[in-house]
Amino acid sequence: MFKQLQQQIHASQTGKVDYVLRNGYVADVISRQWVQADIGITAGKIVAVDTTNSLTAEQQEDMTGKYIIPGLIDGHIHIESSVVTPSQFSRVLVPHGVTTAITDPHEIANVSGAEGIQFMLADAEQATMDIFVMLPSSVPGTALENAGAILQAADLQSFIDHPRVLGLAEVMDYPAVLSGDQAMLEKIELATARNLVVDGHGAGLNHLQIRGYRTAGIHTDHECVTAEEALDRVWQGMYVLIREGSAAKNLKDVLPAVTPANAHRFAFCTDDKHLDELMAEGSINHAVQLAIDEGMEPLLAIQLATWNAAQCYRLYTRGAIAPGFVADLLVLEEPTVMKPQAVYKDGVKVAEHGKMLTKQTSTITPSAAITHSVRLPQVDAAQLNIALPRSTRAHVIEIIPNQIMTKKRIMDVPTENGMFKASVEHDLLKLAIVERHHLRHHVQAAIVHGFGLQRGAVATTIAHDSHNALVLGTNDEDMLVALRELEAMQGGFVLVDNGVVIGKMALPIAGLMTDVDAQEACKQLHDLHEALHILHPTLDFHLFLTLSFIALPVIPALKITDTGLFDVEAFCHIPIAVD
Amino acid sequence: MFKQLQQQIHASQTGKVDYVLRNGYVADVISRQWVQADIGITAGKIVAVDTTNSLTAEQQEDMTGKYIIPGLIDGHIHIESSVVTPSQFSRVLVPHGVTTAITDPHEIANVSGAEGIQFMLADAEQATMDIFVMLPSSVPGTALENAGAILQAADLQSFIDHPRVLGLAEVMDYPAVLSGDQAMLEKIELATARNLVVDGHGAGLNHLQIRGYRTAGIHTDHECVTAEEALDRVWQGMYVLIREGSAAKNLKDVLPAVTPANAHRFAFCTDDKHLDELMAEGSINHAVQLAIDEGMEPLLAIQLATWNAAQCYRLYTRGAIAPGFVADLLVLEEPTVMKPQAVYKDGVKVAEHGKMLTKQTSTITPSAAITHSVRLPQVDAAQLNIALPRSTRAHVIEIIPNQIMTKKRIMDVPTENGMFKASVEHDLLKLAIVERHHLRHHVQAAIVHGFGLQRGAVATTIAHDSHNALVLGTNDEDMLVALRELEAMQGGFVLVDNGVVIGKMALPIAGLMTDVDAQEACKQLHDLHEALHILHPTLDFHLFLTLSFIALPVIPALKITDTGLFDVEAFCHIPIAVD
Repeated sequence: MFKQLQQQIHASQTGKVDYVLRNGYVADVISRQWVQADIGITAGKIVAVDTTNSLTAEQQEDMTGKYIIPGLIDGHIHIESSVVTPSQFSRVLVPHGVTTAITDPHEIANVSGAEGIQFMLADAEQATMDIFVMLPSSVPGTALENAGAILQAADLQSFIDHPRVLGLAEVMDYPAVLSGDQAMLEKIELATARNLVVDGHGAGLNHLQIRGYRTAGIHTDHECVTAEEALDRVWQGMYVLIREGSAAKNLKDVLPAVTPANAHRFAFCTDDKHLDELMAEGSINHAVQLAIDEGMEPLLAIQLATWNAAQCYRLYTRGAIAPGFVADLLVLEEPTVMKPQAVYKDGVKVAEHGKMLTKQTSTITPSAAITHSVRLPQVDAAQLNIALPRSTRAHVIEIIPNQIMTKKRIMDVPTENGMFKASVEHDLLKLAIVERHHLRHHVQAAIVHGFGLQRGAVATTIAHDSHNALVLGTNDEDMLVALRELEAMQGGFVLVDNGVVIGKMALPIAGLMTDVDAQEACKQLHDLHEALHILHPTLDFHLFLTLSFIALPVIPALKITDTGLFDVEAFCHIPIAVD
Repeated sequence: MFKQLQQQIHASQTGKVDYVLRNGYVADVISRQWVQADIGITAGKIVAVDTTNSLTAEQQEDMTGKYIIPGLIDGHIHIESSVVTPSQFSRVLVPHGVTTAITDPHEIANVSGAEGIQFMLADAEQATMDIFVMLPSSVPGTALENAGAILQAADLQSFIDHPRVLGLAEVMDYPAVLSGDQAMLEKIELATARNLVVDGHGAGLNHLQIRGYRTAGIHTDHECVTAEEALDRVWQGMYVLIREGSAAKNLKDVLPAVTPANAHRFAFCTDDKHLDELMAEGSINHAVQLAIDEGMEPLLAIQLATWNAAQCYRLYTRGAIAPGFVADLLVLEEPTVMKPQAVYKDGVKVAEHGKMLTKQTSTITPSAAITHSVRLPQVDAAQLNIALPRSTRAHVIEIIPNQIMTKKRIMDVPTENGMFKASVEHDLLKLAIVERHHLRHHVQAAIVHGFGLQRGAVATTIAHDSHNALVLGTNDEDMLVALRELEAMQGGFVLVDNGVVIGKMALPIAGLMTDVDAQEACKQLHDLHEALHILHPTLDFHLFLTLSFIALPVIPALKITDTGLFDVEAFCHIPIAVD
């Protein structure tokens, strides 16, 4: 039963190990020093870090002049935002040196509930990377919309003892926390009763609200945008995960909060990052590089990305190079350049010079519910009508390119027969959201300003947090074609021009992820982007990303959900027609 | 169900708390700084640390000019060595500022097995201090002696999920670890499989052996006697608990190992300390004071004694003053003087000016097996005979006052009729050990040099690790009287002179602990010591302490167990007679 451990202990004593990395500069991330040493590995575990040249092995590799650091750890990421599955995500990030990631699968959970979490856990087992899961705390995101599932403590119960589950994912519903809502406290207690971690989502929360989070037992925040916020979280007892993603790039602003005394409370995370950026620059390796370039002592930056993240998530055999730790190692040419020449996972070299060495294992077949998650009612043009009987003044959602926030505008809009008529000239287009999980037959329309689409229609099933179907268009006919294609594809992105689908990318896994590999996915995204320029030749922002936030009712100022137009600051639904 | 937590969250938001400590200098042990602030407490938890003067409370106390630090944490202690029960131990140490202790009850486990652990857990519930338990890994200590119990993984299984159990206690059997012994690995896995802590016992272990310990998954060591040893443990991935007890005072030697970079891997512990010293100077408070006096930055010393110990033992709501943490607090007059003016436990003031404010709660009644743990066979003088038929040369155990180690001597000894005859003049006395747990009828005698006893006999049931009955004497008759009294008392210390018991202290709880309170126990120990001077007027060392190590077969050089005279370095039994 202990055969492997016995081998490892024996090897630690005899010095006869499976594999030796000889004579590199080894990062001691506990005491922050470089030590020239040999690393002995047996059965995937480090069993010796030796400075006396006493190790022998069948296989060895000369690390003279090289720098060896522990594999990097991402403290918080939504893999769905990469649009590829965990096992594919792993193949993208491992060559960059990220060997462990802690993910919050709330996107797929919002679509497919517990089955979604099961899929992510099962597919993660195929991954080279060690992917851990925090159980989504916020499904649905709010009561103001209809997602695909509801997950209460009782629904999460069956997952809490899974070996890959490390706790409760980002708690976003701060009113529920601060009012001591029973259902929320049950979810928190699921984790705290087992000494597991509870992640927070402290976006915009002030000192008093963080005080309430801490009193409720919440341990981390990854939403700090300033050094002051970070210092407040640390002062009140939280870990701060410094975030560097695609939209949210907080590292440069937050890094000044790190001091020699408080550095132990900081780690790095990604949150959301586009596939092409992940492929080009990686994630946590990039954060470490940025930190070093900002002047942080290299070993300190490496410590944040390894040891601190492991300590934060209570992963006691990770994040350091010492006997008893998993042999997740990166080989660097320079201690200040985070481009791993080689990546070892559990003592096996799995990537070299930015490429995976291992073959893709068989992908998990998602359950039928997951691959048939887009269920739309018949929608006709009449349901897209926006009646403005008394005047031409309407509430308009004005988007801010690439931003989560929108502006609430009151504008004069073009009408015909008392109905809104989309106008490319005025950049006043129609947006519709259609509930797509349980055939609730909810169709809501709104008027949007700022997208600048010149022709056709675009549709998507990525619409945070409930991921209903969203379609934006210059005319109703193209919008209806787009919706029908969206369902036929079982989710993804669709572009329609003049009644014809001119571009698409299928995301048949819950309408959020593709089942193709990352390279193919990247190509499809590229082709989609090219096609999008036919509909919008001067497009200079991330259109689908911006669209994905327009149904998020917790972020100001004016949003659309399947329950209607929502004024976030007033916290109520409002009609489109003004007066 | 969450009523208390809801109250606490509510209080954190309204600022209306149960109790406020106003305007003190509050130790931020996370970032190592003093911050003038109000501490708000509700239902035993800190719900606010406020610098805006916004808290209101029914009860408050003015802390202007005072320094408030978290309650101190003892990382490793054998409560039995204080000879009082956990609930009494708590009353001694809490006024000194120790609010949490992690104990290894292997002494009582060696006598009473699982029942002994149960007693300690049950009595600890009565204690004001939060006493946690590590499950003894080394019962019996070795196979070379007979203790009262054997505890394998299966026996520990029923305790491992107890909320007060934090892991596996000091693993002493390094040959078992390093050879990958199945039974040992099962015990370690009990803890590691649940992400609990495994304590090590690295006394004298070299780099390679610590490497093996770390490979096996062992997390801590408290046996470092030099800074080099400590640095080696830290380098290889262990926590180091800096020990300051009665016999073992390692702080001054080990402290120089602590650097700004590695300090996070150090905490303090006591291991074994006499009752009178605990009462006079405390334990961890004394270690912090020594560290400060040695030049350590006060907040760093305090951090080791609070935050670091909590992190080491994975106690995530202890060891800091911030919202969400238990309100265990010490009030100091000066930041460099560790004499708490007041001690708060779970938000209630429980001690002031070195005295407990709370009354003793009802003590746990130990089970009958525990209070009838001394079972001796009829021993007659013939069984104490040491035959030396061929010469007067004998193997003699030479004790080193106050030390665990002994010397193996070959000496000419007085004989009569071919039997050893004790001689006060030559300081060659008789020692006997009698198995006292299961009436095995094992009686072994040996010749000892160095005790200097002038008259009579002394007997004890504290004899590490198996705690059989030990009697040392100048003549057989007094030795037999002592043994009979030892049994009548059900264990403790006995002094006999000329056939009469002239001093005694009953330790009827497993023959290790008294059931009286600490003050009374201290008085009894004092009276015993006075009586001992009748038998040994020039006594200038701890006689019973030294005697307590003479049956410990793992420490060199010559020891006696109920299986015979044992040559530790040769690792085998030897006869008393030489040739």
